[in-house]
Amino acid sequence: MARTGFMAEQRIVALAGGVGGAKLAHGLALARPEAALTVVVNTADDFSLFGLHISPDLDTVMYTLGGIANPQTGWGIAGDTAAALEMIGRYGRETWFWLGDRDLATHILRTERLRAGASLTTVTAELAGALGIRAAILPMCDEPVATIVETPDGDLAFQDYFVRRRQADEVRGVRFEGIEAATIPPGVAAALREAAAVVLCPSNPIVSIGPILAVPGFRDLLRDVSAPVVAVSPIVGGAALKGPADRMLASLGHEVSAAGVAALYRDFLDGIVIDQVDAELAGRIEEMGIAVHVTDTVMRDEAHRRTLADETLSFAARLESRARA
Amino acid sequence: MARTGFMAEQRIVALAGGVGGAKLAHGLALARPEAALTVVVNTADDFSLFGLHISPDLDTVMYTLGGIANPQTGWGIAGDTAAALEMIGRYGRETWFWLGDRDLATHILRTERLRAGASLTTVTAELAGALGIRAAILPMCDEPVATIVETPDGDLAFQDYFVRRRQADEVRGVRFEGIEAATIPPGVAAALREAAAVVLCPSNPIVSIGPILAVPGFRDLLRDVSAPVVAVSPIVGGAALKGPADRMLASLGHEVSAAGVAALYRDFLDGIVIDQVDAELAGRIEEMGIAVHVTDTVMRDEAHRRTLADETLSFAARLESRARA
Repeated sequence: MARTGFMAEQRIVALAGGVGGAKLAHGLALARPEAALTVVVNTADDFSLFGLHISPDLDTVMYTLGGIANPQTGWGIAGDTAAALEMIGRYGRETWFWLGDRDLATHILRTERLRAGASLTTVTAELAGALGIRAAILPMCDEPVATIVETPDGDLAFQDYFVRRRQADEVRGVRFEGIEAATIPPGVAAALREAAAVVLCPSNPIVSIGPILAVPGFRDLLRDVSAPVVAVSPIVGGAALKGPADRMLASLGHEVSAAGVAALYRDFLDGIVIDQVDAELAGRIEEMGIAVHVTDTVMRDEAHRRTLADETLSFAARLESRARA
Repeated sequence: MARTGFMAEQRIVALAGGVGGAKLAHGLALARPEAALTVVVNTADDFSLFGLHISPDLDTVMYTLGGIANPQTGWGIAGDTAAALEMIGRYGRETWFWLGDRDLATHILRTERLRAGASLTTVTAELAGALGIRAAILPMCDEPVATIVETPDGDLAFQDYFVRRRQADEVRGVRFEGIEAATIPPGVAAALREAAAVVLCPSNPIVSIGPILAVPGFRDLLRDVSAPVVAVSPIVGGAALKGPADRMLASLGHEVSAAGVAALYRDFLDGIVIDQVDAELAGRIEEMGIAVHVTDTVMRDEAHRRTLADETLSFAARLESRARA
């Protein structure tokens, strides 16, 4: 019997980076409130600042699912202030990475618990639980991994490239330091195995989804899962909606299009959701053996997050029933 | 030739706890801007909260000398907010210790530097220097010392007694854990040896000045210094102007008066400044071999901090010239 949707207790797994990924993850939670949602989040952007462990993507996903994200930026907490950061500046320290006062609470408590020996998985569950978030937000691994961006000016730590230098450098290569020692957390593997659908959110394929896929064994796991694996393209009309994904794809020799994104995921991807402006790419993507769903993918508001998530899950369900047929 | 005041490059050393001590230390800086001021500060109240190293008395002295202290409370930073603390509460943690957002910058940077191996002396100099403070603010020691308050309900950590339980417990004893391993920082010993005057600020004799005096060798050093050692009584008219010093003196079997304070310091004290309401105590104190100066000791405003400091230093100078005569 063909399935037309997701029932209670079915699990959806989303892979996400920061703002764009968090929005679709939020849409998934809104579209299937009865389902169990697991969001696996990039942690290769994590870094230490003033002795605090900062996990930008985990925070963005957590604040977004918790309904407290800053709607203007997509990251940080709505209405947050920066008195502490101003004082840090008064102490003569650099303040190019914005730290909100409420946001600092997250960094402080995370750092405290990590220093006490708790894993990032445990700490994230504690923080998200305290904010009343039902979804499981899981780091891609508990080991430290650091994205290094290779530029004509030399290697840059990710936040140096991304925030301080405002993504102005040409990216000649990207590597994930520590990735060879990273292991898939048991909760991530279990969620993928029991998933009814796996969704790659419209996050940067190189530096957001890329590190998750680079955790040893992760791509194999995605090839092996019984659920359909679908992506939502972060490239629309040849450009990234946010961030440097387009320039990064180009300088690394990839096609800057939804087809280029599909090619990066082709070894495990069953389907991709692309924007209507890219409809003409459908044929080329289908030739890779990847199904295509065309719709409006730009999430302008909360209602649209939900609509896009709903369409993405329905598309995945159709792929599953087709595979079973 | 009798000396009538302090010349440039002369050093004044003040021993201080929190609010009352910081006020007189500030007065000393205002009264003798041309002198070198060293403030030796109690650190036995220091504790760890959310993984941050908090030094309440160092902060109070630093903010007061830096001109940014909250004038209403005497501690914390003027105009500070508590957004981070509110968020910490939202994460389900206890928030009985007030942490301002600007204040957090201090705790965060101090903790970062201590974890990197810097001494508390070094970190305090860095922070105070960044705030443009000319005076040397020195912790009483670089080793961790913790005041434990013994009560009918058992042992209490100092901030538990002082902040959380609002000093409501009867104090049956006080001990300073770790004090036997504490050492006088070289800068403190050097400042005391070269001092033209040593001033014990009107801080709690048991839990503010007490720990400083308990650092091994400290009382001996005070007995040996060539400079006059004078105190300003924190007990006025049989009561503490702030905090539990009066009840603490009583429950520990000391006289609750300026004479009781003088008795606690009699092995090294040359003179004490007492309030005019306590003028009748002068005779008894002088019988201990301690000179007395009577004046208005309640520092109601900044002008009065300066006046009291000026009178205290002039008193010390008279003691010195008398000793030399």
